[in-house]
Amino acid sequence: MKQSKLYIPTLKQTPSDAEAISHQLMLRAGYIRQVSAGVYAYLPLAWSVIQKIEGLIRKQMKDIDAAEMRMPAILPADLWKESGRYATYGDNLFKFKDRHDRDFILGPTHEETFTSIVKEGLNSYKKLPIAMYQIQMKYRDEDRPRNGLLRGREFIMQDAYSFTSNKEQLDVIFNQMEQAYRNIFDACGLNYRVIIGDAGAMGGTDSKEFSAIADIGEDTIAYSDDSDYSANLEMAASKMDENPVEDKKEMEEVDTPNVHTIDALAQLLKVDASRIMKAVAYIADENPVMVMIRGDYDVNDVKLKNYLGADFLREATNEEVTDVFGSVPGFIGPKGIKEDVKVLYDSSLVGLTNFVVGPNKADRHFINANFEDITDEMPEFRDLRVIKEGETSPDGHGKIQFTRGIEIGHIFKLGTKFSKALGANFLDENGKSNPIIMGSYGIGVSRLLTAIIEQHSDENGIIWPVSLAPYQVHVVPIKYNNDIQGKLSDEIVELLENEGYDVLLDDRKERPGVKFADSDLIGTPIRITVGKKAADEIVELKLRSTGETIEVSKDELVNSVKILLKNQK
Amino acid sequence: MKQSKLYIPTLKQTPSDAEAISHQLMLRAGYIRQVSAGVYAYLPLAWSVIQKIEGLIRKQMKDIDAAEMRMPAILPADLWKESGRYATYGDNLFKFKDRHDRDFILGPTHEETFTSIVKEGLNSYKKLPIAMYQIQMKYRDEDRPRNGLLRGREFIMQDAYSFTSNKEQLDVIFNQMEQAYRNIFDACGLNYRVIIGDAGAMGGTDSKEFSAIADIGEDTIAYSDDSDYSANLEMAASKMDENPVEDKKEMEEVDTPNVHTIDALAQLLKVDASRIMKAVAYIADENPVMVMIRGDYDVNDVKLKNYLGADFLREATNEEVTDVFGSVPGFIGPKGIKEDVKVLYDSSLVGLTNFVVGPNKADRHFINANFEDITDEMPEFRDLRVIKEGETSPDGHGKIQFTRGIEIGHIFKLGTKFSKALGANFLDENGKSNPIIMGSYGIGVSRLLTAIIEQHSDENGIIWPVSLAPYQVHVVPIKYNNDIQGKLSDEIVELLENEGYDVLLDDRKERPGVKFADSDLIGTPIRITVGKKAADEIVELKLRSTGETIEVSKDELVNSVKILLKNQK
Repeated sequence: MKQSKLYIPTLKQTPSDAEAISHQLMLRAGYIRQVSAGVYAYLPLAWSVIQKIEGLIRKQMKDIDAAEMRMPAILPADLWKESGRYATYGDNLFKFKDRHDRDFILGPTHEETFTSIVKEGLNSYKKLPIAMYQIQMKYRDEDRPRNGLLRGREFIMQDAYSFTSNKEQLDVIFNQMEQAYRNIFDACGLNYRVIIGDAGAMGGTDSKEFSAIADIGEDTIAYSDDSDYSANLEMAASKMDENPVEDKKEMEEVDTPNVHTIDALAQLLKVDASRIMKAVAYIADENPVMVMIRGDYDVNDVKLKNYLGADFLREATNEEVTDVFGSVPGFIGPKGIKEDVKVLYDSSLVGLTNFVVGPNKADRHFINANFEDITDEMPEFRDLRVIKEGETSPDGHGKIQFTRGIEIGHIFKLGTKFSKALGANFLDENGKSNPIIMGSYGIGVSRLLTAIIEQHSDENGIIWPVSLAPYQVHVVPIKYNNDIQGKLSDEIVELLENEGYDVLLDDRKERPGVKFADSDLIGTPIRITVGKKAADEIVELKLRSTGETIEVSKDELVNSVKILLKNQK
Repeated sequence: MKQSKLYIPTLKQTPSDAEAISHQLMLRAGYIRQVSAGVYAYLPLAWSVIQKIEGLIRKQMKDIDAAEMRMPAILPADLWKESGRYATYGDNLFKFKDRHDRDFILGPTHEETFTSIVKEGLNSYKKLPIAMYQIQMKYRDEDRPRNGLLRGREFIMQDAYSFTSNKEQLDVIFNQMEQAYRNIFDACGLNYRVIIGDAGAMGGTDSKEFSAIADIGEDTIAYSDDSDYSANLEMAASKMDENPVEDKKEMEEVDTPNVHTIDALAQLLKVDASRIMKAVAYIADENPVMVMIRGDYDVNDVKLKNYLGADFLREATNEEVTDVFGSVPGFIGPKGIKEDVKVLYDSSLVGLTNFVVGPNKADRHFINANFEDITDEMPEFRDLRVIKEGETSPDGHGKIQFTRGIEIGHIFKLGTKFSKALGANFLDENGKSNPIIMGSYGIGVSRLLTAIIEQHSDENGIIWPVSLAPYQVHVVPIKYNNDIQGKLSDEIVELLENEGYDVLLDDRKERPGVKFADSDLIGTPIRITVGKKAADEIVELKLRSTGETIEVSKDELVNSVKILLKNQK
């Protein structure tokens, strides 16, 4: 392809509105342009990379007999109302009405649509298992779209769905998908981790998340420095040190006037925050819930929401603490709280003695409290906290470390949530009707560009892995309108294209410096400079990743390119 | 691919809600399912055909150096307000607001978006010409979606845009696109015509439409039976017989009580409708316009709208005829009409004498009128009529015939409408700023399935051209679980797949009759039946298009398939 025919509006300056390196480079190298907040045009270079990723995906899906199809992006709201997600997605859904005043949404994911489409046809165990996928624009009306393609409002997803008659079939496909996704991300040259993910959002029971390591990642990955344990912080567990064993003292009620934070309370009473039992008041699906947790920990909303099976969860307001919980904001505790408040205890409290806790009275606290002082029976403890770096991995091996990751894929064992909600049943071997057991699987295709560039760039631009580069070879004549250089350049392009390579030819009338800078910025793995030695049919090969250069004659060229590209992967 | 892994929900009964053959067959053969009115799921077989069409398009676009990219589907309304099309598209646009109350639309076409994205980069004649395209879901909130994929609300288009610095460059790309489109439609095995189209809708000056011949087509194609002339009826011209020459008589005003139609008037006055000068009152962009036309013709709204350059055109109401035109409904005419009414004369009136015309008085008409009786000066005549079958082709060669067609492609010379509206300018050789000269080009990709199946089917199902068949070969063992048949079937699949063919293997436990019926319905070009002679490695080849069968040994198989597919195209 001649560069003069491609729209590649490179920029000399770093755009001031882009913070992430990947976002800056995609703008500077002429890959994308914003059309509205979180909505991008994929210019020819970006689209070429996207198509190569799609190719990797198609190959892997074919290998596991998953067939491609395509659902609409505009979906009748009814199905989402049936599944309950019309409400739970809330403002994140783009909603609209058609000319006949019927409610529609723009699909952010397609569990409902797939379930409703297959239920007519997959009515017998004989027709299961089956897996299908699509690669499609998805829509989420993000409150704060950011970092270019990282979090957009229109974005490309591969989403796959499996339909099975039993858990063994589900496990098989789930594992095949995991391996297929690993193969895809490996081919993308990504440094990523497969971590325990939050399945709650999908209504499933089990999930794994693929997270590409990157500073701009929105997820915190908690991993063990001495085992395979790896989880999204939202799901991560840990082993804590045990609370110190002490002789139990007598509980007293003391004045703690105007003390509204754990820090202030610890200072006033001269105790460590770890000796305070903190209460956090929530409203979960309109019901009052109080979580007791050690003062030096925070409640993990995702764990709490999943434990409760709640659709909506938020902290209670001061008014609600007063009216619904029957307490006093800042002084809330289990003893004497209204009976319809569900009280949960985090496992950080196991074995805690002689602690500080709120008495549900203004400006007062209990000190030297023990469980028997505040509850009728010993509570059950559950893991509801945000773990901390340095704690012991839950498998007992190694310490927990944190790193940042970009969620690039997620696989879910959905079970029967959607098939039950939408009545998708099959007849089993005994003629009995059962809900289809489902899985869903997704790759953030456009977001992969962000993850890859975050991991593969330098100060001069992008450094594409060979498998994804929009062009593998960039032929840059110093002067294309010089007869000898022009002719040799054309010959080289033809030679390489005949070998199946994607070749970009810089036929523009620009200074060599401009051409070289653009070439580095665009990030093609090999640049071939055709200059003065063209008369002798000698050109220069430059590797984008290392900057190495070698001189090669036309005769050796194809072979050299072949070897260099193979070695780079 | 094993058929058990593909979701192909074939139906035995013809769905009652589908009228068109193509719609019936796509439902029956398990290609598509409706998700909401005019919105379809493309099941694996349909998606495979779509991808093959996309492949044909990509190949042709590559050959003319048009690069693929991708614009968003959700577009800020602002650009469409700037171009004026937010208003002219009216209810056909899907409109919505995001969470911040900003106006968006779902893009039905992308002239505005492309213009706004390239204007930053294509600022010099040195960067022109350039052409780009995308293949994408488009959206139109049709009042009456119908016939399956023929007229949907979400549909797949290939849309291309060219940006050039002068008309010669535009002509070159326009002609290249025309040839590329012809190549694509030829490869689809379509019987189509390239006709003069209505460019007015795009605001351009010149356009050609590609129309596939089909009874369910929504367009009427007018073509000469003895020349190349071919036009959309909306644009079609003709040569009429001349009006008879007569001595002019004296105009009289006569009673025509309660006569409100041309037929009734002709009957009452005992004249032919061709001797009546009919007046049709319009409101064009809020201005009154009256078209005079011979009583036996109808006004062509498209021609009228294009002539006026109007955004909105509709017939006037009776109230408006009274109030705005100052006339009487049913008795309207040019003589004495309000001065601000624009009066136009169709060329059917050239040379008409002694005609009947309305006097703007209730229950009266003029008879034996001549132009000098009703206007101050001889009017200009313009072609504003719907032509009739049997008239002479405008090139003088042959008679006009009508046929029905499906619009499958359209190419437009847009000129500077969008670049002017959105300020997309380039500096020319002399440093002068000019608006970019644009073209736009489109193929109705999903609609092609409708057109192809309308032309390629029989009572048993679809008959795909080899280039588009989801699978070229269908291997159907009588009993797949018979060791010999199963083994031979697997071997055949492998043999053919190694040759690059797409092969479907019917591994289901169904009766042979069911399998054969499904195979015919799906429409793969070659069926290979593996039955009793499997022990001798002999199978039966059946051609879907002709029904011919031959017996072939495994050794001859690849070669036979190769020859048969080549001969079928």
